[in-house]
Amino acid sequence: MLKGRHLIDPMDFTLEEFDEIFKLAQEIIKNPEEFSKVCEGKILATLFYEPSTRTRFSFEAAMMRLGGNVIGFSEPNSSSTAKGESIADTIRTVACYADAAVIRHPKEGAPKIASLYSSIPVINAGDGGHHHPTQTLTDLLTIVSKKGSLSNLTIGLCGDLKFGRTVHSLIKAMSRYENNKFILISPKELKVPDYITKEILEKNNIPYKEVEKIEDAMEELDILYMTRVQRERFFNEEDYIRLKDSFILDGEKMKLAKEDMIVLHPLPRVNEIAYEVDDDKRACYFPQAKYGMYVRMALIAKLLGVR
Amino acid sequence: MLKGRHLIDPMDFTLEEFDEIFKLAQEIIKNPEEFSKVCEGKILATLFYEPSTRTRFSFEAAMMRLGGNVIGFSEPNSSSTAKGESIADTIRTVACYADAAVIRHPKEGAPKIASLYSSIPVINAGDGGHHHPTQTLTDLLTIVSKKGSLSNLTIGLCGDLKFGRTVHSLIKAMSRYENNKFILISPKELKVPDYITKEILEKNNIPYKEVEKIEDAMEELDILYMTRVQRERFFNEEDYIRLKDSFILDGEKMKLAKEDMIVLHPLPRVNEIAYEVDDDKRACYFPQAKYGMYVRMALIAKLLGVR
Amino acid sequence: MLKGRHLIDPMDFTLEEFDEIFKLAQEIIKNPEEFSKVCEGKILATLFYEPSTRTRFSFEAAMMRLGGNVIGFSEPNSSSTAKGESIADTIRTVACYADAAVIRHPKEGAPKIASLYSSIPVINAGDGGHHHPTQTLTDLLTIVSKKGSLSNLTIGLCGDLKFGRTVHSLIKAMSRYENNKFILISPKELKVPDYITKEILEKNNIPYKEVEKIEDAMEELDILYMTRVQRERFFNEEDYIRLKDSFILDGEKMKLAKEDMIVLHPLPRVNEIAYEVDDDKRACYFPQAKYGMYVRMALIAKLLGVR
Repeated sequence: MLKGRHLIDPMDFTLEEFDEIFKLAQEIIKNPEEFSKVCEGKILATLFYEPSTRTRFSFEAAMMRLGGNVIGFSEPNSSSTAKGESIADTIRTVACYADAAVIRHPKEGAPKIASLYSSIPVINAGDGGHHHPTQTLTDLLTIVSKKGSLSNLTIGLCGDLKFGRTVHSLIKAMSRYENNKFILISPKELKVPDYITKEILEKNNIPYKEVEKIEDAMEELDILYMTRVQRERFFNEEDYIRLKDSFILDGEKMKLAKEDMIVLHPLPRVNEIAYEVDDDKRACYFPQAKYGMYVRMALIAKLLGVR
Repeated sequence: MLKGRHLIDPMDFTLEEFDEIFKLAQEIIKNPEEFSKVCEGKILATLFYEPSTRTRFSFEAAMMRLGGNVIGFSEPNSSSTAKGESIADTIRTVACYADAAVIRHPKEGAPKIASLYSSIPVINAGDGGHHHPTQTLTDLLTIVSKKGSLSNLTIGLCGDLKFGRTVHSLIKAMSRYENNKFILISPKELKVPDYITKEILEKNNIPYKEVEKIEDAMEELDILYMTRVQRERFFNEEDYIRLKDSFILDGEKMKLAKEDMIVLHPLPRVNEIAYEVDDDKRACYFPQAKYGMYVRMALIAKLLGVR
Repeated sequence: MLKGRHLIDPMDFTLEEFDEIFKLAQEIIKNPEEFSKVCEGKILATLFYEPSTRTRFSFEAAMMRLGGNVIGFSEPNSSSTAKGESIADTIRTVACYADAAVIRHPKEGAPKIASLYSSIPVINAGDGGHHHPTQTLTDLLTIVSKKGSLSNLTIGLCGDLKFGRTVHSLIKAMSRYENNKFILISPKELKVPDYITKEILEKNNIPYKEVEKIEDAMEELDILYMTRVQRERFFNEEDYIRLKDSFILDGEKMKLAKEDMIVLHPLPRVNEIAYEVDDDKRACYFPQAKYGMYVRMALIAKLLGVR
């Protein structure tokens, strides 16, 4: 039963609950008309204490395509926080006006705190380097829709695997399904942290290897998950410049991949995928954005209990 | 007849008109479904020349819960004002697009000027230290809903009574009802200005006293109206720090109060009400925020003439 | 057939297509109720990389009055651009969420680039000193509605004719209709550029003259199009101050004009039209803003193919 629940950490939901959401998302994709008024009269609050246009648009479009309304802010300075209000008070006030709230916050744990004081469902839309559960739902819905299953897959993850929270969440989520393998492609400086490799992969006997070149993994992959090297995660500009151009996907490297491999990316990209790859039918990062809207529609409908 | 009217000063409306709004608000609370489409096809413009997330959310949610739409801005820099436009021209243009306008402005009198040039209803959502009439409507609806009447009450007002415009408006509004008494609780530096005590209370023979401790008033009160000590109203940081922690309401002080006393606060609070008070059933400041949305629904419906 | 098309340059559309839009706009004006749900379930994205409250409000109100929804941003810093994303990627992502996009951008050509990558209609809402086609549509709808025709008119254009893109577009657009004459009223420093006078007017044998005083043109005019002297187009403050007050329209000058002359202005105005002119029945700049909303309703309905 998802009605009234919060979504803070992708692991908050069981596999069965994930499945329930994906099934509803796929129904919506098939027949969007049928769902176009299920949230009529309801209001979603989008509280973005840090700008993220893409994520905000995805949530707002999702709510509107369910027939609902949106209130919100997209910048921290227009919020009551400037007047010294706690997030506990903010959410209790917002709960007077809205039926559910989406929170993006630069501080880890802020959405969790909000959820503890909230009488309406709270959805974490990213809290610092911590969680971003609807990105994980987006990734999984894209995979299950494109590959037909979430099991028996070889998943390559490439780029900034140290700071990239979407990568960590995806590894954790895909580790819950059977018979998946991981190939971790990154420079030494940006390797997946130990708590993932040791405590999640090794502890659960999930096969993985670490390589330093896309070419060394390409042939085996069912999925290549590319990530942006985020400037804001680096301590100094020099390191950023030296590393950002490593691990760029281009048409040449795509020639090594399977015919039915899919390329994913949480977007925005800077230059880690060459534009020439966009026309390759295996490039799925824009369809992935669309799945992101559908999975949010399903999530909102479930948390509000209208489906 | 409220259709087509402006609301600039809380005193713009007669007691009968207040009453008409509160009655409609209470009907909406009882049966929100019935009002969920009365503003269909209508647009409310929210023009916030100064950020106030809470007030903006309250108006936007109100309009949406009546089935209407909202356009607006929440920051001054995104407005045409930057190009040198007068507020008279702005409202005349906005009136081409919207059916009513809400204006929040740092300059006293700005919403009044707008109303003089406007062919659509203008609602003042706060103009500097001047008026904030929908806060007053919110306070009155909360009082009448919780206490059953707006007369025969002993009202304590605590905190910054010098600069707090909501306090001044509430005193003026409650002075219009019969047999109310006021206890003004503040440090000397932040006392209610003379024009209120002399020209409104004394001139109308309304009993009041001024005390410097919450404890000295608590037992008598039917209502305790707490206010935030607003940093932006102080001339220097030192005074702010010295005075902000005076007059904090906590569980200990609540023990002195009547069983059916209610605590109100316009929010946001900083630390003038301890968190432990939140669980006391007499704490009504979050329900008050909800009444704020309902009273705005009633106000909008009346000014637009749909009810 | 306008369904699915982009509008980047006012000249993208033929006279017949202009006419189709104006006819629909006039139907909407006559019977707005009939169109109040034609965009139900559709979403318009308003991407303002440069603030322009008036234009944004006009588009948003237009979409809402067709029953549609709006997502968007009104400031550049809240967009993904800050993370280094290209406009090509932005529009491809936005196309996952929305059914049409409006783009305002400080860089000339940006909306054009977006349109090349977009699967949804893109409307240019102003790109630097370049195009602003919906302002041109607004001007033409106002003229045809007030004067009954777009031909056989003497059109005076006054103010900053050098940098004013709306003036250049209006001259181009009105040059496509029969038997129009232009009187260009500006200081020498702000004359219409040669590429307009030589290559459009002279090449097509369209009569025009250049004068330096409003008084020298007034008697002949059917339309007086006033423009703001935009501070941001000047290279130095001195020139701006010296020139901005030239070419101010006041009641005295209005006495020279025909009884059925109309005054237009794209707004916002600063002081180039004295307030006393507002009460003259020939002042049409506020009605013009309303025509702007209606013409955008017609445009959106056409591009989305719902009418």
